[in-house]
Amino acid sequence: MFFIQNAVGQKFGKEYMQTINIIHLGLGNVGKEVVKQIAQQEIFVRESFFTRINYVAIFVSKKEVVDFNGIPLSLLVNDKEIPWENSTNSDLALELINTVSSPFILLDTTASDKTLPIVKRALQKGGYVVMSNKKPLTVLQKESDILDSLGKHRLFYETTVGAGLPIIHTLQTLRETGDEVLEIQGCLSGTLGYIFSELEKGKKFSMVVLDAKNQGFTEPDPRDDLSGLDVARKALILSRMLGKKMELSDIPLQDLYPQSMNKLSTEDFLNQIHTLDKQYQENVSKAKKENKVLRFLARITKQTSAVGLETIDKESDIGNLQGPDNIVVIKTKRYQKNPLIIKGPGAGIEVTATGIFGNIIDIIKKEVHI
Amino acid sequence: MFFIQNAVGQKFGKEYMQTINIIHLGLGNVGKEVVKQIAQQEIFVRESFFTRINYVAIFVSKKEVVDFNGIPLSLLVNDKEIPWENSTNSDLALELINTVSSPFILLDTTASDKTLPIVKRALQKGGYVVMSNKKPLTVLQKESDILDSLGKHRLFYETTVGAGLPIIHTLQTLRETGDEVLEIQGCLSGTLGYIFSELEKGKKFSMVVLDAKNQGFTEPDPRDDLSGLDVARKALILSRMLGKKMELSDIPLQDLYPQSMNKLSTEDFLNQIHTLDKQYQENVSKAKKENKVLRFLARITKQTSAVGLETIDKESDIGNLQGPDNIVVIKTKRYQKNPLIIKGPGAGIEVTATGIFGNIIDIIKKEVHI
Repeated sequence: MFFIQNAVGQKFGKEYMQTINIIHLGLGNVGKEVVKQIAQQEIFVRESFFTRINYVAIFVSKKEVVDFNGIPLSLLVNDKEIPWENSTNSDLALELINTVSSPFILLDTTASDKTLPIVKRALQKGGYVVMSNKKPLTVLQKESDILDSLGKHRLFYETTVGAGLPIIHTLQTLRETGDEVLEIQGCLSGTLGYIFSELEKGKKFSMVVLDAKNQGFTEPDPRDDLSGLDVARKALILSRMLGKKMELSDIPLQDLYPQSMNKLSTEDFLNQIHTLDKQYQENVSKAKKENKVLRFLARITKQTSAVGLETIDKESDIGNLQGPDNIVVIKTKRYQKNPLIIKGPGAGIEVTATGIFGNIIDIIKKEVHI
Repeated sequence: MFFIQNAVGQKFGKEYMQTINIIHLGLGNVGKEVVKQIAQQEIFVRESFFTRINYVAIFVSKKEVVDFNGIPLSLLVNDKEIPWENSTNSDLALELINTVSSPFILLDTTASDKTLPIVKRALQKGGYVVMSNKKPLTVLQKESDILDSLGKHRLFYETTVGAGLPIIHTLQTLRETGDEVLEIQGCLSGTLGYIFSELEKGKKFSMVVLDAKNQGFTEPDPRDDLSGLDVARKALILSRMLGKKMELSDIPLQDLYPQSMNKLSTEDFLNQIHTLDKQYQENVSKAKKENKVLRFLARITKQTSAVGLETIDKESDIGNLQGPDNIVVIKTKRYQKNPLIIKGPGAGIEVTATGIFGNIIDIIKKEVHI
């Protein structure tokens, strides 16, 4: 039905305006920014791609006043300001997916591990999925295989690694054109990047972590960053892109604090973190003597997928990284001597929303023929 | 017609294999590598995208034996090994475009300034165009506007700047999602990059240029590189992407040798190039004292588009660049404090072909609905 209309649209000189429907899960800071950017570009999208973006529903995660920041409310046909994570709303999301017209996009900007069934249903129904949520991609391999079989080419997830940086699209192009990825090295945590480049300046580990926490760079409990789990999830997503069959648990985590500190309350952890200062100071000094620096690195080859602290030449691209920037260094058969490098902020509300909206634009370009 | 078939393809469970036709102009080293990569990925493309790539014709630029490197010749339905640049073959190309079935792609891997009418005809007929050839994009602004009006979204040219590096796609995404590009800084010539990073090692300008020439890094007449014209073309392409209306002649060229040397023969130029050594040695030394280096930079803002030699902090991303690598540093409203940086080889047969094939894959993904 849609394709025929579309063909007519082309035949009669772009007179047909197509509609793309969006069902959006999760309206946190990033989700709101996505809505804002879409609203700001509404006219551009209509004029450039003859496409009207129609928000069918937004499922917010808690009862809150949504500030649409000057967005025309007409954009929201059916704004359900209700938590979607309980079963009723999960059911409502599934129901909407069953009845929405194609083409449609399910947007997952939550951080929830409960959206997988909704993602699967959307793919089953021929819809597109765009997610910044890493959880549905870091499920068990057998679940991941099901996702792939349902619609690998309709699943977009640029922002799960490096936010708006064009890492996923680049790796896909390399793979699809027959290049062979030999190694990916990445600093994929802005938080850990900030911490280790501050340590270089001679600051104490405890002070840097507390500073980062106070500036809102870390999770409420900094151990969530220091455990490396977030980086491991990203490493798993990249590994699976390279065709590796593996589980999250196959990537050994290297905590940046002793395991014994896991049983402490957040407050006690923060009070005792200074006990780690001496060790880090020694490590940083030792590295410095060899003109090296500490970096928390994801390293993926055909054989291994690992995350952990490494000592790196200060003069290298990775050693040269400063502050919260991310970097990926991609070595392939074709980019062997000189790798392909992408660098820049790997977190942030605006740039993450840009990456998500970029995926939506890619889908619109697929669907429209002009 | 095509869309209906395609819809049926989707309806009846991917049973429909679509065909995408290619008319390919220019079979130099890059053109041959594109054909090779496509042939190697033929099965992948069929299985992943249910698409058969059908080479309708390849127009080579001179009568030569084409080594297809193990490519199944069945790929070439109608291989015309005749020069296409004379009027007869230009006519033949136009004729083929008039009769070829959609969807089709015109590939321009020539370095010719004669392909513009063929490119225009392909867009007029609803076809896609993929080019590594910069010339049709650096024509007069009024011609460029016509190209845009014929099918802006069907024109792909990732490899015209930075070869396989994902520069064009990234800028498009930023623009289309409503970000505002404030400044692009780029080292976009591998040849000039090599020359200036060798100068840093204390080598003489004449020796470095002659070395580069002997290694095949420069054009036969190195003045073609040293004039900066190639970088200016790339700067124009980037400027027009940002919506600037301007001509190639609006970008002032900064020759890296005195204008008086333009009247010399290549041989005489090479014999006299040593007269420039002292000046370059002084410039490099002076920069070094301030911990700086010389870089040949394209710099594009809303106000200016310029190319020329600049003195840059050695510790910066651009100052840190070594050898023939390219780099672009993109500052936008959303990537303001920390820019988005892409770095890597910006020339080379394999990586350029990868970028071209990547554009073809993007088109295939647009055309197929799976």
